[in-house]
Amino acid sequence: MNGLDRIRLVSLRDKVMSAEQAIELIQDGAVVGLSGFGGAGEAKTVPLVLAEHAKQHPLKITLATGASLGNKIDGRLNEAHAIVRRYPYQADPGLRKAINAGEVMYIDQHLSEMADNIRHHNLPRINVAVIAATAITEDGQIIPTGSCGNSANFVEMADHVIIEIDNTIHPILEGVHDIYVPKARPNRAPIPLIHAGDRIGTVGIQVSPEKISAIVLNDLPDTSFNMDEPDQDTLAIAKHLIQFFEAEVAAGHLPQNLGPLQSGVGSIANAVFSGFEHSNFHHLEMYSEVLQDCTFDLIDSGKMTFASGCSMTLSDSCAQRVMQNFEQYKDKIVLRPQEISNNPEIIRRLGIIAINTALEFDIYGNVNSTHVSGTKMMNGIGGSGDFTRHAHIAIFVSKSVAKGGAISSVVPMVSHTDHTEHDIDVLVTENGLADLRGLAPRERARKIIDLCAHPDYRDELNDYFERACQRGGQTPHLLEEALSWHAKFEETGNMHKTA
Amino acid sequence: MNGLDRIRLVSLRDKVMSAEQAIELIQDGAVVGLSGFGGAGEAKTVPLVLAEHAKQHPLKITLATGASLGNKIDGRLNEAHAIVRRYPYQADPGLRKAINAGEVMYIDQHLSEMADNIRHHNLPRINVAVIAATAITEDGQIIPTGSCGNSANFVEMADHVIIEIDNTIHPILEGVHDIYVPKARPNRAPIPLIHAGDRIGTVGIQVSPEKISAIVLNDLPDTSFNMDEPDQDTLAIAKHLIQFFEAEVAAGHLPQNLGPLQSGVGSIANAVFSGFEHSNFHHLEMYSEVLQDCTFDLIDSGKMTFASGCSMTLSDSCAQRVMQNFEQYKDKIVLRPQEISNNPEIIRRLGIIAINTALEFDIYGNVNSTHVSGTKMMNGIGGSGDFTRHAHIAIFVSKSVAKGGAISSVVPMVSHTDHTEHDIDVLVTENGLADLRGLAPRERARKIIDLCAHPDYRDELNDYFERACQRGGQTPHLLEEALSWHAKFEETGNMHKTA
Repeated sequence: MNGLDRIRLVSLRDKVMSAEQAIELIQDGAVVGLSGFGGAGEAKTVPLVLAEHAKQHPLKITLATGASLGNKIDGRLNEAHAIVRRYPYQADPGLRKAINAGEVMYIDQHLSEMADNIRHHNLPRINVAVIAATAITEDGQIIPTGSCGNSANFVEMADHVIIEIDNTIHPILEGVHDIYVPKARPNRAPIPLIHAGDRIGTVGIQVSPEKISAIVLNDLPDTSFNMDEPDQDTLAIAKHLIQFFEAEVAAGHLPQNLGPLQSGVGSIANAVFSGFEHSNFHHLEMYSEVLQDCTFDLIDSGKMTFASGCSMTLSDSCAQRVMQNFEQYKDKIVLRPQEISNNPEIIRRLGIIAINTALEFDIYGNVNSTHVSGTKMMNGIGGSGDFTRHAHIAIFVSKSVAKGGAISSVVPMVSHTDHTEHDIDVLVTENGLADLRGLAPRERARKIIDLCAHPDYRDELNDYFERACQRGGQTPHLLEEALSWHAKFEETGNMHKTA
Repeated sequence: MNGLDRIRLVSLRDKVMSAEQAIELIQDGAVVGLSGFGGAGEAKTVPLVLAEHAKQHPLKITLATGASLGNKIDGRLNEAHAIVRRYPYQADPGLRKAINAGEVMYIDQHLSEMADNIRHHNLPRINVAVIAATAITEDGQIIPTGSCGNSANFVEMADHVIIEIDNTIHPILEGVHDIYVPKARPNRAPIPLIHAGDRIGTVGIQVSPEKISAIVLNDLPDTSFNMDEPDQDTLAIAKHLIQFFEAEVAAGHLPQNLGPLQSGVGSIANAVFSGFEHSNFHHLEMYSEVLQDCTFDLIDSGKMTFASGCSMTLSDSCAQRVMQNFEQYKDKIVLRPQEISNNPEIIRRLGIIAINTALEFDIYGNVNSTHVSGTKMMNGIGGSGDFTRHAHIAIFVSKSVAKGGAISSVVPMVSHTDHTEHDIDVLVTENGLADLRGLAPRERARKIIDLCAHPDYRDELNDYFERACQRGGQTPHLLEEALSWHAKFEETGNMHKTA
């Protein structure tokens, strides 16, 4: 059977069974912990078979993961009405709809916190962990695939473990993971990571063999992710950022290589990182969540010396290139559990520059990352809060308008707050960059309106701000009008007063 | 001269001068770093003489501190129009007025972050540090007084250091401080603190003697802080909390001593901690910012074995009791720099239970700690964000109504967000306790309205929530109405619809 040779602890080969048999371990009401982060490294066959099964034999599970899943697994399980509760992150259109309809209870969480929340009883124990593996080593370690996510924690905290041996993953990936699991409190030691490239753990997940209840063989590949090409706006954002970094280095305020970089997922972040290609920066390092195509482009061009992440979310062509030449990347990348990749302790220690994408921000620098019109969940906060709060410089980027100008991304008051002005250092749109460090709210407003807002909305924002200032306050607002832009958009499809 | 003997590095005695001479070091436009945290341990003579001087010879300084100052120093400097910019926290009525009028630029910051912000150029360098000292040791270490604050960082990062030898401080305090200063990045090591009681630093602040430009002798004592006696509501809040803790311990979800506790400053927190007096908990520990009277009451009654803080903010009678019997407290308390007392790395490692006071919270569990009616600054975020984000269990307490019922502390949407629902685990009012862990926003709303809101506002909150749910969303809201309670209060002095 294809894949049996990947189970190198031979005694475990007896546990190989079909997915149909394995899902009998998953009872109605179970809390299931699935591998997968950033659409990579999820177990596939077991949850997809479970979804099919649930169509005939209704069951409801609480689904915990690393973060978002590939292969439309959230969507398929949701179509079968099999998800009653979901955390800590998702990005599936169908599940999103069910969440916003109140049909699925979604607990949107800082990605770094979930492991401790389970370990220390803020969230229920995991009944069944389903973990994708490249291989099981001679000594029984589980080698993850394209992501580490919460897999090590799920294995540790689960009653039953199902392993999915992923035959589509190149075996050469073994060795890229660095699995470190903090001890339960009290007596927890510091995490001994001092540089982005440090290895502090083991190559695989430690588990006692008797905890493994089933092994399933999988032949479905990870999903391919293609990024939009940079456009005029995202290139402008990248240019503003590079200029800012150059000035900070020139002033002696940042090291020559800027320090470790974190980037959110998506097209804007991808464009920003592509901007480094044509910059004068060298010896760049990443300490981030998701390694995208742009990471490997920067490594190939010699600009980046090391990248630490939690997952690799690549296009097909990039994945092929990386796997075919993996020997040359092997000492330049590492994948870590999200409890380590996103850990506040490490983020503050290293002094990371964090670049994330905002849905909208307000004139005082509060950021909405999640809720469209303050109510409808887009995806979730993900790791943006983990990085933003603890970064050396916390940056959010956004295009200044959306829907052809009908929506201003710069508003009087955000309709939902994920990141408060306390945490935000720099805001960037295609129009410009507002460096907010050391400024009070009224000063922030002037800069954000002048430098970031779209020219078509600048007068209306200034008008709001000036009338608010007449009423006074540290953070002047007209409460009866603060959210009127959003209400207007909901009503008319346009935020403009005059629309 | 009284106090000279406290300067045990004899060569420094030549630097003693009058405050009038010392303030010549403080130029117009200077960034001044003052010791002081929680109204304790501030330098007094130098800033008060500066305030008097500024009345005749106008000057404007940027004033950085640990946190709030005693002896009305913020107020006096503000009366002299000497403060142009202020961070990271203040609690003076006069300065508050100037801040809300937009006359003083106030940068309200997480207390743990300021040192790194200065060290790594997010905030300007300190020109002159003015630091209260109990003594200067034979080897030139500065022994702080009633707080550590940012003093060690200011000394490290200042061009000039002025020491104020505080003759009012009992010399026996020497030894209670534990000064640890993280190295600048890169190559910063983990902070080696594993238990609340660990000592990881030195008893005083290291400084090279030539950096000390002046020494001034001070005879003004620290301010005395008297707490309100617990009332019916704060006692009810304490009772709900103790019951919650008992149930968590019984379920095996918390250790017998709960783990290290943090408490915000103020009467409610004081009442809650007094509640432990009559509880069955033993071997309690604190890892907090401000040690108040209640800390020492718990130590005296044998309930608390250790308390780590950044300052001691005591009533006169408690201060007297503590100083007269200091030998018996000496191995039970430690004062640390705020970069360590409030450090995310430590807070998450230790698994702290954080209890802070909310100004208001909304039906989804977002918390406003700072802004009255969303605009006017009360004091500042202080350390509440440092602890809340990283706590094992993050708790906010509040009375359910204010101003005789005209204000509901539970509102449809907070008028300002300091802590997002992602960070909040438990909310408590005199009416009850809402355990929000593992719940989605719609579930949180039901619990918060039923358990925390005042009965007089429950119907109106339910009505809002139900109508919002009809529109859908992960976090249902009626944007045109979400802030109407606050707007109504501003207009009529009452939040009630029917008022």
